Amino acid sequence: MTAGVVLHLTEAAAGKQRAVLRNALNLLPEVEVGTPIEVVVHGEAITLARPGQATADALAEAQDAGITIVVCRNSLRSQDLTDRDLVHGAVVVPSGVAHLVARQLEGWAYLRP
Amino acid sequence: MTAGVVLHLTEAAAGKQRAVLRNALNLLPEVEVGTPIEVVVHGEAITLARPGQATADALAEAQDAGITIVVCRNSLRSQDLTDRDLVHGAVVVPSGVAHLVARQLEGWAYLRP
Amino acid sequence: MTAGVVLHLTEAAAGKQRAVLRNALNLLPEVEVGTPIEVVVHGEAITLARPGQATADALAEAQDAGITIVVCRNSLRSQDLTDRDLVHGAVVVPSGVAHLVARQLEGWAYLRP
Repeated sequence: MTAGVVLHLTEAAAGKQRAVLRNALNLLPEVEVGTPIEVVVHGEAITLARPGQATADALAEAQDAGITIVVCRNSLRSQDLTDRDLVHGAVVVPSGVAHLVARQLEGWAYLRP
Repeated sequence: MTAGVVLHLTEAAAGKQRAVLRNALNLLPEVEVGTPIEVVVHGEAITLARPGQATADALAEAQDAGITIVVCRNSLRSQDLTDRDLVHGAVVVPSGVAHLVARQLEGWAYLRP
Repeated sequence: MTAGVVLHLTEAAAGKQRAVLRNALNLLPEVEVGTPIEVVVHGEAITLARPGQATADALAEAQDAGITIVVCRNSLRSQDLTDRDLVHGAVVVPSGVAHLVARQLEGWAYLRP
């Protein structure tokens, strides 16, 4: 078993974002129950975590299944957004890239679909 | 030395697929003899493993050199394809992303060119 | 703390290259002082390390901050370039992908923004 899995998403395109959420969902039945799976977004990709997007249904399905959406505060700030502009359940970290580094040090697997 | 190397490919564009096969070939002389190298395809990228593609020559060269093409069964199924639609030598795994996670746990290096 | 961080860049687009340099700069205050951070370029991305590019200011800022630009000699050769065609401070390695594998074996974190 793995400590957890981070999926790294940097693109804004709805089709790409849906594909990455699907990758995360497809992982769920393959890992030990309780293994955390995170989709980490920064840069243009933080649209994924904003309400009312074209990807809202896919996002809700992923969150309902237990997948955590992690958002980069540096990216929020540079787009003049705050935590209140995000969907319920999104987790904000100081730096998306630093979070991805930290997770690897904790033994998580890294995927950049 | 490394246990092995996985190259993660998600794009359908022939130019991109050729570049990733070239990356895999360029790795060969740099790693210890016998180190396994896999190109893992899922989503749109599974075209790489279908016969008669524009990338067929590059694919044959990579396979002849000992590089293994690993295909995601979830992706095959969602495109109404089966193992018989793939080139000889392609290896099918239940989930491409789960395979990439498993390889990292086994100590393989991960590249997403 | 981590042994170091490699950021893997394969794209030629100036906007993408600037974003990756920004990711590297954003990492700096988040890692322990002295942790090496490298941006590894191969294929089309080696334009980043050539003088007189649209990204020159962002590149100089990153290098001044202590980030190392690592260039693949295979890619240089295939584009009929030599070390003398690169900006001061760029480090050339025999193979970009092999370098990324070696760094992971040394315990560095891998990011492909």
